[in-house]
Amino acid sequence: MDIVLIGAGNVATQLAKTFQKKNISIRQIYSRTLENAQKLAEEVNSSFTNNLAEIDRQADVYFYAVKDIVLEEIIRKINIREGLHIHTAGSIPISVFDGFAEKYGVFYPLQTFSKTREIDFTHIPIFIEGNSLVSEQQIFQLAHLLCDKIFIASSEQRQLIHLSAVFACNFSNHMFNIANEIVAQAGFSFEILKPLIDETVQKLNDMTPFEAQTGPAVRNDENVIQKHLSLLANRPELANIYKIISEHISKTYSKQ
Amino acid sequence: MDIVLIGAGNVATQLAKTFQKKNISIRQIYSRTLENAQKLAEEVNSSFTNNLAEIDRQADVYFYAVKDIVLEEIIRKINIREGLHIHTAGSIPISVFDGFAEKYGVFYPLQTFSKTREIDFTHIPIFIEGNSLVSEQQIFQLAHLLCDKIFIASSEQRQLIHLSAVFACNFSNHMFNIANEIVAQAGFSFEILKPLIDETVQKLNDMTPFEAQTGPAVRNDENVIQKHLSLLANRPELANIYKIISEHISKTYSKQ
Repeated sequence: MDIVLIGAGNVATQLAKTFQKKNISIRQIYSRTLENAQKLAEEVNSSFTNNLAEIDRQADVYFYAVKDIVLEEIIRKINIREGLHIHTAGSIPISVFDGFAEKYGVFYPLQTFSKTREIDFTHIPIFIEGNSLVSEQQIFQLAHLLCDKIFIASSEQRQLIHLSAVFACNFSNHMFNIANEIVAQAGFSFEILKPLIDETVQKLNDMTPFEAQTGPAVRNDENVIQKHLSLLANRPELANIYKIISEHISKTYSKQ
Repeated sequence: MDIVLIGAGNVATQLAKTFQKKNISIRQIYSRTLENAQKLAEEVNSSFTNNLAEIDRQADVYFYAVKDIVLEEIIRKINIREGLHIHTAGSIPISVFDGFAEKYGVFYPLQTFSKTREIDFTHIPIFIEGNSLVSEQQIFQLAHLLCDKIFIASSEQRQLIHLSAVFACNFSNHMFNIANEIVAQAGFSFEILKPLIDETVQKLNDMTPFEAQTGPAVRNDENVIQKHLSLLANRPELANIYKIISEHISKTYSKQ
């Protein structure tokens, strides 16, 4: 199986390394930035290009792991009808390939990727979709070489999954970042928060996040909430975030 | 050393069990609700009462683990000047004891407590404060029986630490709860989000939360943000939370 990988960012990097570990060769890597294509290609023994016109037209699989905003344009410019075309974007519908290929679909790994942290795909949930049964089966077989948690999801489902991931990962991480700023103000390092953050997540093995909720908002402790808001008086944007999330917690539990 | 424990909630329960494990006997447990006092007392072989007038006046240490809102009133009503008086509240200053005792202070464990999950205090950061060097040393010695990460923190520092914990734990957990609602809407279980949440936290061993940020807001991907907001059109409060946190992420990184 010959794979062309389009992209050299966080997702593409982790995909390339995983393919290599599984002895699946990548024929070519494309990135708009030649240095990025070259760097990743060297790591996985592949050829590389930054020219869409040079992309190998004989590959079996074209894997698109590029920013959402450029995906459509790249598909249009590559314009190779043969092979199986797969994108990895949570919020782009499968129809982005309509009219540009015969066999296509989606392989969406639900994970947060960085270039530097190696990701083991084995237990990452992968959401796949194909434009036909044949495409879907081929994507399934390919996914199955990398991981053991594969789900079929429509473009509508995948969009919701992506949205939920923004809350579960991106927004929770931003909460950690705000917490880090505030402990620094108190003269302490982020290290002191780690046992708390670990336990916050460990609890979810025993109970739902709904059951796990603690803190002033869920017990309607207006005294503490007002003290905290006054501590944030000189950070009006943080005070606003504090207020709106607290109100939403309070409302979520008053419905019970 | 004779300890009276005032409270039978989440923190009091975990404290009582930890004292017992360390062979420190609890003489008496008070709770407003007799059943709660009795239940915890039976677990740790202590006497119990729901009557503040019956609280043992000969104890060495009085540990207050009650809701912030009732702490001041309980201190006033107990009115025992002897012994070492210690509260466990993040946001209540040490001065709450002024005029009610000679030796007093604070023992604030930075953790999220539930009655059902046993907490190992050993590596939990504890923030202590005493009204005198003698009080502080006694609180330190007591804390040292339970754990190995003890920090001296003023009431002002402790308030900020508590505020940061609300972001790090309470608000991140609420993000997990919202994510759970949204994956359910897509027809999937919370289980699919766990590898993502685990990795979100694991990353913090390698990088700061500032460096770990991913997602549409940090890369200013307006397309995805608008799609997500339209998915939340029938949930205006969630759309508002999404918008405000995304704007704050975007602003945090545009300062760079």
